[in-house]
Amino acid sequence: MTPLAPDATTRIPTGPTGIGTAAPGPRTERDLLGEVTIPPGALWGVHTKRALDNFPISGTTIGTFGELVQGLVTVKLAAARANLALGYLDRTRADAIAGACQLILQDSAYHAQFVVDAMQGGAGTSTNMNANEVIANVALGLLGEKPGTYAVLHPNDHVNMAQSTNDVYPTALRLGLLLAVDPLVRALEGLHAALDEKAEAFGAILKVGRTQLRDAVPMTLGQEFGAFRTAIATEISSIKTHATAFGQVNLGGTAIGTGLNTDPRYASTVMAELRHLTGRPMAGAPDLIEATSDVGAFVLFSGVLKRLALKLSKMSSDLRLLSSGPRTGLGEIVLPAVQAGSSIMPGKVNPVIPEAVNQVAYLVAGHDMTITMCADSGQLQLNAFEPMIGYCLFTSIRTLRAAIETLATRCISGISADTARCQYLSDINIGIITALVPVLGYDTCSAIAKRALAENRRVTELIVAEGLLSPERLADLLRPDALTSPNVGRQAG
Amino acid sequence: MTPLAPDATTRIPTGPTGIGTAAPGPRTERDLLGEVTIPPGALWGVHTKRALDNFPISGTTIGTFGELVQGLVTVKLAAARANLALGYLDRTRADAIAGACQLILQDSAYHAQFVVDAMQGGAGTSTNMNANEVIANVALGLLGEKPGTYAVLHPNDHVNMAQSTNDVYPTALRLGLLLAVDPLVRALEGLHAALDEKAEAFGAILKVGRTQLRDAVPMTLGQEFGAFRTAIATEISSIKTHATAFGQVNLGGTAIGTGLNTDPRYASTVMAELRHLTGRPMAGAPDLIEATSDVGAFVLFSGVLKRLALKLSKMSSDLRLLSSGPRTGLGEIVLPAVQAGSSIMPGKVNPVIPEAVNQVAYLVAGHDMTITMCADSGQLQLNAFEPMIGYCLFTSIRTLRAAIETLATRCISGISADTARCQYLSDINIGIITALVPVLGYDTCSAIAKRALAENRRVTELIVAEGLLSPERLADLLRPDALTSPNVGRQAG
Amino acid sequence: MTPLAPDATTRIPTGPTGIGTAAPGPRTERDLLGEVTIPPGALWGVHTKRALDNFPISGTTIGTFGELVQGLVTVKLAAARANLALGYLDRTRADAIAGACQLILQDSAYHAQFVVDAMQGGAGTSTNMNANEVIANVALGLLGEKPGTYAVLHPNDHVNMAQSTNDVYPTALRLGLLLAVDPLVRALEGLHAALDEKAEAFGAILKVGRTQLRDAVPMTLGQEFGAFRTAIATEISSIKTHATAFGQVNLGGTAIGTGLNTDPRYASTVMAELRHLTGRPMAGAPDLIEATSDVGAFVLFSGVLKRLALKLSKMSSDLRLLSSGPRTGLGEIVLPAVQAGSSIMPGKVNPVIPEAVNQVAYLVAGHDMTITMCADSGQLQLNAFEPMIGYCLFTSIRTLRAAIETLATRCISGISADTARCQYLSDINIGIITALVPVLGYDTCSAIAKRALAENRRVTELIVAEGLLSPERLADLLRPDALTSPNVGRQAG
Amino acid sequence: MTPLAPDATTRIPTGPTGIGTAAPGPRTERDLLGEVTIPPGALWGVHTKRALDNFPISGTTIGTFGELVQGLVTVKLAAARANLALGYLDRTRADAIAGACQLILQDSAYHAQFVVDAMQGGAGTSTNMNANEVIANVALGLLGEKPGTYAVLHPNDHVNMAQSTNDVYPTALRLGLLLAVDPLVRALEGLHAALDEKAEAFGAILKVGRTQLRDAVPMTLGQEFGAFRTAIATEISSIKTHATAFGQVNLGGTAIGTGLNTDPRYASTVMAELRHLTGRPMAGAPDLIEATSDVGAFVLFSGVLKRLALKLSKMSSDLRLLSSGPRTGLGEIVLPAVQAGSSIMPGKVNPVIPEAVNQVAYLVAGHDMTITMCADSGQLQLNAFEPMIGYCLFTSIRTLRAAIETLATRCISGISADTARCQYLSDINIGIITALVPVLGYDTCSAIAKRALAENRRVTELIVAEGLLSPERLADLLRPDALTSPNVGRQAG
Repeated sequence: MTPLAPDATTRIPTGPTGIGTAAPGPRTERDLLGEVTIPPGALWGVHTKRALDNFPISGTTIGTFGELVQGLVTVKLAAARANLALGYLDRTRADAIAGACQLILQDSAYHAQFVVDAMQGGAGTSTNMNANEVIANVALGLLGEKPGTYAVLHPNDHVNMAQSTNDVYPTALRLGLLLAVDPLVRALEGLHAALDEKAEAFGAILKVGRTQLRDAVPMTLGQEFGAFRTAIATEISSIKTHATAFGQVNLGGTAIGTGLNTDPRYASTVMAELRHLTGRPMAGAPDLIEATSDVGAFVLFSGVLKRLALKLSKMSSDLRLLSSGPRTGLGEIVLPAVQAGSSIMPGKVNPVIPEAVNQVAYLVAGHDMTITMCADSGQLQLNAFEPMIGYCLFTSIRTLRAAIETLATRCISGISADTARCQYLSDINIGIITALVPVLGYDTCSAIAKRALAENRRVTELIVAEGLLSPERLADLLRPDALTSPNVGRQAG
Repeated sequence: MTPLAPDATTRIPTGPTGIGTAAPGPRTERDLLGEVTIPPGALWGVHTKRALDNFPISGTTIGTFGELVQGLVTVKLAAARANLALGYLDRTRADAIAGACQLILQDSAYHAQFVVDAMQGGAGTSTNMNANEVIANVALGLLGEKPGTYAVLHPNDHVNMAQSTNDVYPTALRLGLLLAVDPLVRALEGLHAALDEKAEAFGAILKVGRTQLRDAVPMTLGQEFGAFRTAIATEISSIKTHATAFGQVNLGGTAIGTGLNTDPRYASTVMAELRHLTGRPMAGAPDLIEATSDVGAFVLFSGVLKRLALKLSKMSSDLRLLSSGPRTGLGEIVLPAVQAGSSIMPGKVNPVIPEAVNQVAYLVAGHDMTITMCADSGQLQLNAFEPMIGYCLFTSIRTLRAAIETLATRCISGISADTARCQYLSDINIGIITALVPVLGYDTCSAIAKRALAENRRVTELIVAEGLLSPERLADLLRPDALTSPNVGRQAG
Repeated sequence: MTPLAPDATTRIPTGPTGIGTAAPGPRTERDLLGEVTIPPGALWGVHTKRALDNFPISGTTIGTFGELVQGLVTVKLAAARANLALGYLDRTRADAIAGACQLILQDSAYHAQFVVDAMQGGAGTSTNMNANEVIANVALGLLGEKPGTYAVLHPNDHVNMAQSTNDVYPTALRLGLLLAVDPLVRALEGLHAALDEKAEAFGAILKVGRTQLRDAVPMTLGQEFGAFRTAIATEISSIKTHATAFGQVNLGGTAIGTGLNTDPRYASTVMAELRHLTGRPMAGAPDLIEATSDVGAFVLFSGVLKRLALKLSKMSSDLRLLSSGPRTGLGEIVLPAVQAGSSIMPGKVNPVIPEAVNQVAYLVAGHDMTITMCADSGQLQLNAFEPMIGYCLFTSIRTLRAAIETLATRCISGISADTARCQYLSDINIGIITALVPVLGYDTCSAIAKRALAENRRVTELIVAEGLLSPERLADLLRPDALTSPNVGRQAG
Repeated sequence: MTPLAPDATTRIPTGPTGIGTAAPGPRTERDLLGEVTIPPGALWGVHTKRALDNFPISGTTIGTFGELVQGLVTVKLAAARANLALGYLDRTRADAIAGACQLILQDSAYHAQFVVDAMQGGAGTSTNMNANEVIANVALGLLGEKPGTYAVLHPNDHVNMAQSTNDVYPTALRLGLLLAVDPLVRALEGLHAALDEKAEAFGAILKVGRTQLRDAVPMTLGQEFGAFRTAIATEISSIKTHATAFGQVNLGGTAIGTGLNTDPRYASTVMAELRHLTGRPMAGAPDLIEATSDVGAFVLFSGVLKRLALKLSKMSSDLRLLSSGPRTGLGEIVLPAVQAGSSIMPGKVNPVIPEAVNQVAYLVAGHDMTITMCADSGQLQLNAFEPMIGYCLFTSIRTLRAAIETLATRCISGISADTARCQYLSDINIGIITALVPVLGYDTCSAIAKRALAENRRVTELIVAEGLLSPERLADLLRPDALTSPNVGRQAG
């Protein structure tokens, strides 16, 4: 993944090889609460240490979400460049910070330094602090200094210059989500292709359409898979469209959106840098005060993910129904066997992949609820619960992507049709008589349908036996193409 | 429904017949905001009028929830009796208030006077005010006074004496819920009886058990309906057990639970009256301050209702699956036809009753979410969102009860089994071979199972053809009773 | 509300005045289950009667949702006109049906004839049947026939011609939602105007911005209300944008989307009629099979409504916080008193309107959950749970609209600022020192802040006392406009 | 944690030290789908490998949930002992299996061998298979055999004897949850103790009680913390009571609850072993068929956890409100500073611990939704979605426990009161006049209250100035103990 445009001006010229990853020894740092020991190997500092102590909640670090790290570091890089351009940051420090950011962006090994728990209080302050500290220490390495030599280059004064967690963190979340959405879309495109193949392959297989689990009127298996394909196409479009909302960010608003302590030119300058670095149409929100506390884009996108999840769940449930059996269910399709289904029942094979997809969908719906409550609880000039919103969105996207890939490659692409069974069920389906209503009338059809059910006979057999239609006329009326498209004009004609 | 124990001492001796329901003319009342005109026929007053203006939200009045009205009026009656006993209320006024309460408790026509919207701000104050005003005016009628003559008997000073909305309303909600739960339990008992009848009637019908929608091992249809019966029995017990929590109330705590402005004897006195009037083991909460803001009993009971809803939903989904067809589904049971299913498809009949039940279950799950958010948003010494909690709980109980009654009487009790189809599916089920594993071994069974599927033959046929077991021995091993209970010892013996 | 374009060609020429509303006597109708008695006054028939018996669930009829009735009748009118144009329906019947539809569209008194419960099984069949029967009987009246004379004009054969519940009902839901959204948007525009007025009026009032409920940096009260205004502006746009998805419908797909039993020209003809009648850009879904079972548009719109609800809830919570007091809370604004707050506490006034809004928001979030579960449970070629989806969406929209109107007119527009208190809190706010960091440095500012807190003094006082800045320079740096906008360049200069 | 009673009879007599953990080389295993290579070091086998390929979903392995592993292995141990006792398993194999189980129970290093993803299809089959394979290979090690020598001791034939995933997995989940609940309860007890300490310490501090965020009547800060304590005491009791439902399990039911292929004595024998091994009152469900598909115990316990979460969330929100400031909020208490709050605002300290707790609560509420949907989607004789239910419950319990511990130790225990501010706010509170209503009457009090607000004076000052009460009488009436308990009798006397 190369989310960032190459950028020669911030390339590190002569930094010692791998300096950023060199494991430093233990050291002491201090904050307003006192001194702490930073363990060997840590590029993070005192504020990160406090957060580690305060939030031993989930065991999932923010570094687990690589896209969030990319987002954070991209913001820091953009800010450093803007601060340099506006004359607030000297070139040495600016280059060191930029170099550190580029190192981290290029090497995911640094993600292990983003250690604070993804479930944290403080509205993302600890995440921002963790980023500031790691970047500062990598930059210090590039300058030939030891970690913690903040008099030379300071996490807050220089890396965080003209920034507040309250504009950095929401911006980084949005950038991270934009990055995370790309592979989700690619996974969906893979699923779409797999469904498309089946829709084409099954185009000639006539089968029973069912409404409310009751035998209804004919369709083709290709139409059924075509509907799945359409659903996924719609979701791809929906995901792409709605993700664009993340392009509007509140960077430059600082603490509460008033832009306090920024140069009047800063907001537009840093936004230009963001566009340059990401190659995306990033823009500042028109009302930065509103944007600082607003989580509406997250809420809506969670709803968009939930809709995708529900489409996948419905499709998975249908696949399980259609493949139910092998003998006493619907049995119209056969899912590929991917593992033994039972230790006690010989030969049993289960629809394990769709079952996994259903469950991921329910997780996503649960996360939507969590996000809803986080959104509702925001107060005044900030929503303090964005870290959980971020956790849920990244986890939802990640598990959806994995579920979609598994569904496409380990299930859909291996599905085969039981054409004979589809045909047999079509033949015995009473609902087929619906197609004869324009010719025979509703009352006659009802009587035939009732008798077929009572006598356990086929409607076609009864219609011919009663002399209502000749076998040839009947066969013509029940041609698959006539049954599965608008046709009454042709039939009646 | 006679929720209250008869009580001679508060019987109205000589009140003019129907005085409370006599429609008064328009009149003027005033509060701190000014004067308002109370329309003719209204027994409520100025505070109710304000609420009508402020909350035109749902169109559903509190009077729609008869049990809540009963709960409110019972609290008022208990308080009047306690205030009389403790010497704070004179006998004339106490008798008039008690008489008014009894009138309302006995005649649901008064519910039409409880007009404020069920969705209201103010933590139930408007509901309490509505009750105070109606009771005061009915009492004034009993005293021969016109409505609004509050100098004689005042809604707040006398009807609401020693009370606050903050203890009255939560107590009334709990009383109302206790009343509402009774018919819910009766509905469940009716459903239990209907399921029991089917479990017995279907006891000898062998059928295929299915796991993950795949053919598994044999069971009887009676066992399947017996499982539904067990589920409902468990829920009856669960509802009853958890409803008892509503017996603990915060009456006597007044504004924030400190009991400010009550006599030290009041809390115990009014509780004794509540027990007397309701015949239920009502008790004061041990920590009235905690109890005043606590909605935990509502939250948990909502979870209990949701579990019941999910059991009903699972059962309904199973019924729809088992009855799917008539030709191309599972078709093991036939649901009674209760209405035509389609205008376009002759003879189609749908499982409309279970479908209604599923949807009610989802409404209840949604209400649980609403209640969750209401509970979360309570602040400091009160939860201001109890009115919506009450709306959701009463609506959930009411719709569940209706759905259960419809399910029992219009669906379950009319279900018939397609015994021949159950037997046919049992015969072709490959999973039956599981029962032979202890005799033939897992590997042999796996081979037979695989061959049966590939060659579209029955496993019994293959086993006899292969000479693995004699027809007699096979028949003995596959006796329905041996297949549907612990048996390996007997089989192997 | 005039949702329909006037249409001379379908105007009823010489129908007896009010014939449709004339109350007929009792009569007998029959269906496949036998005979039923239709009560006097009923314009509905046997299928509606069955549904009344089957679904006594919520007590809320579909007629309660006038927009749904409008949607249904508009679909019927469009179909009749299409069937006439294509030669399937004779002019006499077509005119009668069209005339009946126009009557119902013009007179909401007919809504009382739409009596089936909004919570129903059958995927909307009962709703469609109810509409067919009422329209047929009104049309029969126009033809001078008695209700029930279906040999002349039949609910299914003529009113429902070329239709299935499965395309009519989802289309009617969408049309109804489009109608319901209009007044919701108007309510939001009213709220926006009210907020705009306050944002302008409060533009000069300096106050403390708060993040995480902690004193942060300065802003104006106008900025705070401006942020609310921005939030609502965004939601207006979001609602409008997302509602357009309802313009895509599956009318013409009939039972499962294949268009069985329709003329190949029907789908496009009826869609043109829909556009003509509604004046909206209605269009057929590109994949009618997918569209028949798809509820994605409902799911997403529910998410959109939930986001709106959360914005309203956050705003309401903020208003309650900002107005908390009157003495011991934040007390920066005063909400208008709209009713007495307490019977026990003299003079207490509560923020009852915002509290109502919070609760409606939670109801909407709960409905979103219900819709989620309905969507998840759709199977194969239809989602049987659209009636509950419809109930939830219409109820959410209706209660939101009411809550918004109440919020705008009874709360926002009457809000006044406590300017003196805002100023006082601004003066004692330690966070103001943030603005001096560019001048005095972070460390000096930290020391001052700490000392101010410990000694209970103002930071301005300490800064002057310490000789760090002259009173004039300090006053200049702390000018309201400098504090509430990007400024560091100007300050440092 | 020593969840299992020591058991000499199954102790491994002479196994080589650490044999189970010896890292084997790569090997080949096969299933019905073909051959796979098992990597070096793996004690799991082919079925686990399939699951690894099929479910790369969450990255969270089942081994992460140590209690689930304990539960699984305990079931296997109980089954082996029962099979030995009933004569179905020879002593050598039984001892080897038992020895392997004991090793795993005693050494959490084995958890790393439980590698399948916690989010999986197959209803837990892969989890059961993983356990069978690891136990078999450890047992083979004890027997001096290489991993994979299943001819000697087979994962399915021997380790899984008389079992099905469908009874093993739900039983193991329940055992695991019982184990997980213990430390949750201990954490709650720690929180209770911390709250108790504060309730006692703050007992004499008079403060303003608030309802609907409006100044109400007096209470003590001790009463406020006492209410938190009461809430937690209730939750401890609730958690303990409801967890007992997990003591009822479906072990012995095998595939669908009929007990197919088990000895009639097996169910009671294995249950006795479970009781013996766990020291808990484990019991078989009365209807094993119902129990096999039932997830009601999980659903209800999720509701119980959600209620606990909401109590914690409400408490956290209150703590944030009460400590808001330091200057412009309520400021009645001071939370301990645990980390710097802002990089841009000097000296800002945020309530980060309560914020973390709020967010965990919302996660738990989201998980409850996920569990709800999993429960709803169970079909016929099994609920295939128990793995996600297990994931959510274990994660909810784990994060709740961590949040509670952090809350108790890093927040509650360090809270101090701002007694002077509490007193000041009490003095200016208008609501105090409520206590004078029994003496001065409601109307007089209302007038005083209104005037106090308008003139910005204290009510006590006005009352004395008006000569309504003497300073001495007033002081007596406003004694803290009189204000914060039932008192009207004493006052009026």
